Amino acid sequence: MTATLFLVGVGPGDPELLTLKAVRCLGAVAVVAYPSTGDGAALALDIAGGYVNPAALRLPCSIPMARERGPAQAAYDDAAARIVDHLRAGRDVAWLCEGDPLFYGSAMYLVGRVAGIAPVVVIPGVTSLTAAAAAIGRPLAARNETLKVLPAPLEDAVLRAELAVAPAVAIIKVGRHFDRIRSLLVETGHAEGAMVVEHATTGRQRVTPLVAFAHGERPYFSTILCYRGVEAWSVAS
Amino acid sequence: MTATLFLVGVGPGDPELLTLKAVRCLGAVAVVAYPSTGDGAALALDIAGGYVNPAALRLPCSIPMARERGPAQAAYDDAAARIVDHLRAGRDVAWLCEGDPLFYGSAMYLVGRVAGIAPVVVIPGVTSLTAAAAAIGRPLAARNETLKVLPAPLEDAVLRAELAVAPAVAIIKVGRHFDRIRSLLVETGHAEGAMVVEHATTGRQRVTPLVAFAHGERPYFSTILCYRGVEAWSVAS
Repeated sequence: MTATLFLVGVGPGDPELLTLKAVRCLGAVAVVAYPSTGDGAALALDIAGGYVNPAALRLPCSIPMARERGPAQAAYDDAAARIVDHLRAGRDVAWLCEGDPLFYGSAMYLVGRVAGIAPVVVIPGVTSLTAAAAAIGRPLAARNETLKVLPAPLEDAVLRAELAVAPAVAIIKVGRHFDRIRSLLVETGHAEGAMVVEHATTGRQRVTPLVAFAHGERPYFSTILCYRGVEAWSVAS
Repeated sequence: MTATLFLVGVGPGDPELLTLKAVRCLGAVAVVAYPSTGDGAALALDIAGGYVNPAALRLPCSIPMARERGPAQAAYDDAAARIVDHLRAGRDVAWLCEGDPLFYGSAMYLVGRVAGIAPVVVIPGVTSLTAAAAAIGRPLAARNETLKVLPAPLEDAVLRAELAVAPAVAIIKVGRHFDRIRSLLVETGHAEGAMVVEHATTGRQRVTPLVAFAHGERPYFSTILCYRGVEAWSVAS
């Protein structure tokens, strides 16, 4: 008898990269919930806000960016409780997710708390990974290549072992790990072909060869794609 | 002075999973080109056909599914030549790509032949990978897990080595390799949590635990997602 929770992938940043299905959902639900940071920023809403039914209730849920899990988990408890109240009252809720809801997203923390209570529907979205490849103009992976997606916070030893045998690699969650990642890519022979893509598909998009990235500078909202021996073609915009 | 080639990701199968940008492009270009098989089937057009400008010229390009590279490469030579003729005449061309154009797509063969002659723009799309995760109702990868995408035609030794150290794995291009892949997943301890997703996001979507897949049967248009110790939640449809 409860209403439905929709996990809606809003894509990598360009509002035109929402799917028709996501847009239809956001125009139909009674409540649109989304993560916001302490200072009120809400990237997923910035991307998708133009498609939200004006009559829908907007439900920002403050989720701390804490590295330790405790505070964020308490915030998800709170967000889930508020969302479940709406679902039990028969109001469908959309939860906005940057990129795709199930690709390294935080939606899983919410779903774990709601799935036993209400139906959950996932609307997949374009990931920052393929958006980065589009920005560079080079396949993310092709033919029978293995593609590895490596989160930058992994330990050096794990990254080194995976990078040693890898034709195509995407490094995500780079942020404060940039200098360490650059060293590891140099060490494992990936630096030459590596490209840093910041703010993919937005007006602030920037594509920089890793070797040209200024020392001391740190990329923002970035993905690093590495290839061995693959040429990029020039990309129109 | 030449017109533009757009590589348009049309997503995994559900026509509602095209992006707004893809739909706008298909409504605006003068020519819509797409791969077709020998018997005239054209999956990408089946997905996106409803959004193609009725006044646009449709340009099917026969691409053989040959395992050896020669015949397919000749077919791409021919397709590129026909497309370049339109571009030189000032007509924008959209090339339809299942999923995302740069995620294991064949668009790269076309682009290699066109990029020096005309501008190329990539419109990223939803991949079958995140669509499969949505069908299962379980993250593709989360937190700081490594995600590996492994094409099934890879040699046993390569697959075995990658599977030995892998929290999250997606096996693509399964087809005729199914029995071999199942054996390797059993051997490396991945079989228990593995799910087979066929025809993701379409009316023929089917999700089957690997261990429940009938012997002798072979999955179609499928992806296998493996997890260790992650529970799926029940998915509404």
